[in-house]
Amino acid sequence: MAVTEFSQDQLDEIYTFAVDLGRKAGEMLLASIERRIGDGDNQFEEKDSSVDIVTQTDEDVETFIKTAIHDKYPAHKFLGEETYAKSQSRKYLINEHPTWCVDPLDGTVNFTHLFPMFCVSIAFLVNHRPVIGVIYAPFQDQLFSSCANRGAWLNEKRRLPLIRNPSIPPLPPNAPRQCIFSCEWGKDRRDVPDGNMHRKVESFLNMAAEAGGRDGKGGMVHGVRSLGSATLDLAYTAMGSFDIWWEGGCWEWDVAAGIAILLEAGGLVTTANAPLDPMTAPIEDFRLGSRLYLAVRPAGPSLTETGRQSQERTVREVWRRVRELEYTRPGA
Amino acid sequence: MAVTEFSQDQLDEIYTFAVDLGRKAGEMLLASIERRIGDGDNQFEEKDSSVDIVTQTDEDVETFIKTAIHDKYPAHKFLGEETYAKSQSRKYLINEHPTWCVDPLDGTVNFTHLFPMFCVSIAFLVNHRPVIGVIYAPFQDQLFSSCANRGAWLNEKRRLPLIRNPSIPPLPPNAPRQCIFSCEWGKDRRDVPDGNMHRKVESFLNMAAEAGGRDGKGGMVHGVRSLGSATLDLAYTAMGSFDIWWEGGCWEWDVAAGIAILLEAGGLVTTANAPLDPMTAPIEDFRLGSRLYLAVRPAGPSLTETGRQSQERTVREVWRRVRELEYTRPGA
Repeated sequence: MAVTEFSQDQLDEIYTFAVDLGRKAGEMLLASIERRIGDGDNQFEEKDSSVDIVTQTDEDVETFIKTAIHDKYPAHKFLGEETYAKSQSRKYLINEHPTWCVDPLDGTVNFTHLFPMFCVSIAFLVNHRPVIGVIYAPFQDQLFSSCANRGAWLNEKRRLPLIRNPSIPPLPPNAPRQCIFSCEWGKDRRDVPDGNMHRKVESFLNMAAEAGGRDGKGGMVHGVRSLGSATLDLAYTAMGSFDIWWEGGCWEWDVAAGIAILLEAGGLVTTANAPLDPMTAPIEDFRLGSRLYLAVRPAGPSLTETGRQSQERTVREVWRRVRELEYTRPGA
Repeated sequence: MAVTEFSQDQLDEIYTFAVDLGRKAGEMLLASIERRIGDGDNQFEEKDSSVDIVTQTDEDVETFIKTAIHDKYPAHKFLGEETYAKSQSRKYLINEHPTWCVDPLDGTVNFTHLFPMFCVSIAFLVNHRPVIGVIYAPFQDQLFSSCANRGAWLNEKRRLPLIRNPSIPPLPPNAPRQCIFSCEWGKDRRDVPDGNMHRKVESFLNMAAEAGGRDGKGGMVHGVRSLGSATLDLAYTAMGSFDIWWEGGCWEWDVAAGIAILLEAGGLVTTANAPLDPMTAPIEDFRLGSRLYLAVRPAGPSLTETGRQSQERTVREVWRRVRELEYTRPGA
């Protein structure tokens, strides 16, 4: 039981604090963009390159969040992308203590180019388990949030997933057909014959190709989407917009808040790499530090399956179409 | 000169009408989503499948737009995606007459899955040239619009491209490096050795791979993005968020408004298929009915190049990395 050391009242209070923090951090991201766009009375300074401004914003927002958490909850641990990136270690540092896991700016490339798919991501974990998640994409004013036992929400008013009346739809009977498949090209672009880029593209092709194609692996998904933000990929999976998200190479701050929201919405998260027997092996729970994730959207029952059964069936159909990815880290 | 038969006052009036029409059509799309989400007092009817609702919405919105245009400008021609799709012909029907070219719902798969990247697209053309464009993505309340000689705008208040102070940045000197490359997997998923899907994926790989990889074709772009909406791909290229958009298979209603906006913002549009000598051939103007497009974002001068020179250099660097796509149509 992940959250027994916190009462629901305590969690609710932490949730309210986290949502407020997310909104304020998002406003800082927007203010940074205003500075780059350069309105009449807020001139862009030529000496600042956009890369400098982005790096500075990233650090400023993390410092703001870290300070606010330390002031309010001095006993909690803090793990942020910027502070982690500056250390030499790549160890997985989360333990059973109450921990905040924060990415001040996910989708940095999008932010640099002013493509709206960027966000701040704030998760609160207890016993390794993300129990509160807040993702705020300020350019489009979309706030995704969740608190254990309280549901997951868009802008604090729409419950996630969005379609739930008369019930949340099951995964399609012929999934991955009719599914939107979300995936990212990532940063590992080495052109080596069996490197991650080629394994990913082979997997994308299997998911996209006509049914019967690719030696029976063709998944004929309804659409393939790449947004450039793992965090928002997970948020849209929780919303029910994406049916499947498959990824390797992320870090825990990229996914912790998204996993909290997706799980609270009723989604499933496991590993990207298929077990030896993908059609019968147990569906293992995700490991936050594994850098390998496969997520399936919330699902309700059909006449013949529970929602969970339709999710597990979909996981297996993905596993049998994707290649094993190679992302390792010390201690994970 | 495309617009000599219309005064600027007339175009301004048509533009105001088109923006109003776009907003109203977008509200119809949102209302349809509300019906599917099913709030307490607006129950989802079990007999309606989401596919039926989407098709009905598509037709209703097109009828609404067509009727409004016919009432206001009875002498203008109308070409809409829904009416075209129902005819047997696949001919290119736009001629020199003042014509409205409309997609009531672009990003239909996204709309079906409630992924926010869907929009209404309204273009007004004179002498084959898109001179007014309106794209409205109602879920995130983003309205992109342009009128000949009046500039291109986000939500009627931010001029496009967004970054323009002290000047619009040129394309990077080593483009496509540092560029965001936007592309779509599309509907042609036949697993034939030299089919469009495999040609596209080979092209995506060339653009993505490390510099020096892929026998010298590696483009090492900053990011690869697939939104599932050609119209919004173009809108974000006009905004400056995407540097390059490359696509085959679209129809004129998918791209007419986006091209109007991109051109007015200062972008370049040509053909997706490279000429025989991509590094020296003239950069031909786009042909609206060609189903083959390559767009580059607006660009300002550097110390050594005009903005147009940096765009043309980028076009050639894309052409030498992409495969020829096969999309044909009668009469185009």
